[in-house]
Amino acid sequence: VTTDPDVVASFEEDWTGRWRGRAACVVRPRSTDEVVAVVRACAAHGVAIVPQGGNTGLVGGSVPRAGEVVLSLRRLDAVEPVDAAAAEIVVGAGATLAAVQSVARAAGLEFAVDIAPRASCTIGGMIATNAGGAHVIRFGMMAEQVIGVEAVCADGSVVGRVPDLRKNNAGYHLGALLAGSEGTLAVITRAHLRLVPALPERAVALVGVPGAAEAVQAIAALRRLPSLVALEIAFAEAIDLACRFARTECPLSAGFGAALLAECAGRTSPLEELADAVTALGALALDAAVATDASGIARLWALREGIPDAIRAEGVPHKLDVAVPVARIPEFERAVRERVASLAPGARVVVFGHAGDGNLHVNVLGLAADDEAVDDAVLRLAADLGGSIAAEHGVGVAKVRALALTRSAADRAALRSLKRAFDPAGLLNPGVAVPPD
Amino acid sequence: VTTDPDVVASFEEDWTGRWRGRAACVVRPRSTDEVVAVVRACAAHGVAIVPQGGNTGLVGGSVPRAGEVVLSLRRLDAVEPVDAAAAEIVVGAGATLAAVQSVARAAGLEFAVDIAPRASCTIGGMIATNAGGAHVIRFGMMAEQVIGVEAVCADGSVVGRVPDLRKNNAGYHLGALLAGSEGTLAVITRAHLRLVPALPERAVALVGVPGAAEAVQAIAALRRLPSLVALEIAFAEAIDLACRFARTECPLSAGFGAALLAECAGRTSPLEELADAVTALGALALDAAVATDASGIARLWALREGIPDAIRAEGVPHKLDVAVPVARIPEFERAVRERVASLAPGARVVVFGHAGDGNLHVNVLGLAADDEAVDDAVLRLAADLGGSIAAEHGVGVAKVRALALTRSAADRAALRSLKRAFDPAGLLNPGVAVPPD
Repeated sequence: VTTDPDVVASFEEDWTGRWRGRAACVVRPRSTDEVVAVVRACAAHGVAIVPQGGNTGLVGGSVPRAGEVVLSLRRLDAVEPVDAAAAEIVVGAGATLAAVQSVARAAGLEFAVDIAPRASCTIGGMIATNAGGAHVIRFGMMAEQVIGVEAVCADGSVVGRVPDLRKNNAGYHLGALLAGSEGTLAVITRAHLRLVPALPERAVALVGVPGAAEAVQAIAALRRLPSLVALEIAFAEAIDLACRFARTECPLSAGFGAALLAECAGRTSPLEELADAVTALGALALDAAVATDASGIARLWALREGIPDAIRAEGVPHKLDVAVPVARIPEFERAVRERVASLAPGARVVVFGHAGDGNLHVNVLGLAADDEAVDDAVLRLAADLGGSIAAEHGVGVAKVRALALTRSAADRAALRSLKRAFDPAGLLNPGVAVPPD
Repeated sequence: VTTDPDVVASFEEDWTGRWRGRAACVVRPRSTDEVVAVVRACAAHGVAIVPQGGNTGLVGGSVPRAGEVVLSLRRLDAVEPVDAAAAEIVVGAGATLAAVQSVARAAGLEFAVDIAPRASCTIGGMIATNAGGAHVIRFGMMAEQVIGVEAVCADGSVVGRVPDLRKNNAGYHLGALLAGSEGTLAVITRAHLRLVPALPERAVALVGVPGAAEAVQAIAALRRLPSLVALEIAFAEAIDLACRFARTECPLSAGFGAALLAECAGRTSPLEELADAVTALGALALDAAVATDASGIARLWALREGIPDAIRAEGVPHKLDVAVPVARIPEFERAVRERVASLAPGARVVVFGHAGDGNLHVNVLGLAADDEAVDDAVLRLAADLGGSIAAEHGVGVAKVRALALTRSAADRAALRSLKRAFDPAGLLNPGVAVPPD
């Protein structure tokens, strides 16, 4: 337990700098038993808890709001040896993604979910927020990697089973419920995860298309490639920003409205499969750059992964993580620019994301920090088009009010009912993820 | 609503013939609104409901026990057109697996889960039981195919969202909770499902290995093949039975203790990848038969899929669906034979299943129908080895007592708490899936 302000400070503010609050103290248990002791002590005194992993969240779900105890799981960082026969691994909630990737790779396997803050984000946090990333189109989200979890309930009881079995229908799946529950139902302490075969041979194509409509047609074609592991999209302004930021020439000739980045991977080279598919796009593709060597692949990915930093170099963006049905990407893209232009003339809209999932990261530059009108309009637009207002970055405190845009009154009642069943006193991450009555 | 005994009879007994009971009546609504009306009427009168899909269950979860209303979802059988851009489909709970497969294939896509009763099993039932099958090793169980569900709660409220988004973390995932809940939390009426790329080129190898220990080593090697879609196991007595039943010669020379069936699939032929992997097994493989043409593949699969019928031709088996960690298959296989031999000398044990998931179907011939000592011993053995007592066939009424073997007191309390939160009056499929206090 520490109350040293210098130590506590780094637990009180999240990665965005936008979300922060005061913590009563930070506790850093080293075992599940210690987590139980902390939770019991807090329950006995009616003190609220904010569970925290690597604190890489973007929606205020992992930082204190009003003097809660921050329960850091980072010291539960055990990574057990890979079970090679089953291609599975058991890890503590505090193990970083990078640590798990490293152990999996040493065993010739791979962990299927990869997100940018890999060096600091923790497995527990990734499960609690059901993290996504670029490989969802092939391997699913974090929930689909979870074989079993161990978690501490609000009363200090320990539920779940680790190790567990991938095929185990012996009663309700607590792990599936906890995935995406953002620390509001129980505190995840340990997890049993599936690994996937390593896919060492890769081919990446960056394809310029005239605009969103053509992008959708290309997505429909490219997603049929069995070796596809990622299918990303960036509209022209995002690619332009990334190229200028990295001071590299754009590998696509000018004139495209959007660029798709498709990655295929396999044990043998997927180049022919990818190249044939790009050729078959015909007139949909204005231009394409293909790479199969590590440095060429890294250069193409750098354009996509460099976008957030390139945006940040221009100012402090409002970042809105939404998803829409893939077929409605054109409608969304057109309307989001129109709505921002009418609400905030002069603001810049930069759109990129995971095309295969319809997951778009809308970044708006040139807004005041407390200007919520644009945020609200973008979320409402996504909801109106049958989309999600929180695709992969979670609800946190940032989007609790917005839940009503996509979840019915009956749904919200069901969420509250689940919360009451697990945490009747409301001590686990209060204010996060669950809409009030 | 019907009470005609001739009609009602087929809803009162399940596929095994072992589980049956009397229904007050059978209701067959044609829409979600009609389901709501039925559930409300039952709630108003305190009458229990047994939801039923294709009635292909094996554990008594879909047939009445004591005069309940059977709520058949079969008429909710709409299959909407495939969304090609997203590779997704929306269907009614009563759509059969075969109907969904057919529509998916016409669009050049595939539904990832395939199980034998495909012509009659329904999507709603498959979600409610979280069905598995041979492709879990590649594509996951039914829960992993579900993008969204619509369901009617015990009070008649409609929860969930269809269509939904694959990437949608806006609050707890009700679909993930309902998958595997066996109709005890809500009645699934509609579902939004993901499809996967069609993999037209296939290669299948049947590999004879000396025994379970070598099988585990071969599983560890074969599961690394990126193109692998199925990895099955049958011990020698199961292959012998299937060959004799089908009156075909065994494609493997005599002397193997177990056979693995590995299927690879892709857009281009996976033969080389599979053949190289089988060659690399070296001395682990005593013999192998490989096929790439449709009839050869069908012949090899017939040996595996013919096992249940071959067993039934010998008598009425006790069928025990368990899973154990892959590395413990040898220990389980040895011990299960020993325990059955000591409890029921002369009984025959036939073991086969989904090797990649450690999912073994233990069939015991020569037992009295009401002899539960062997059943209990097999489930206990699976639990003692860190396994599951209900891998893919569900809990139903058959295994409710056995849940305590693998779920802690805290876990069982959490299950009851979830049940109370969704169905406080206990009217949805009472007696199924949830252990009593």
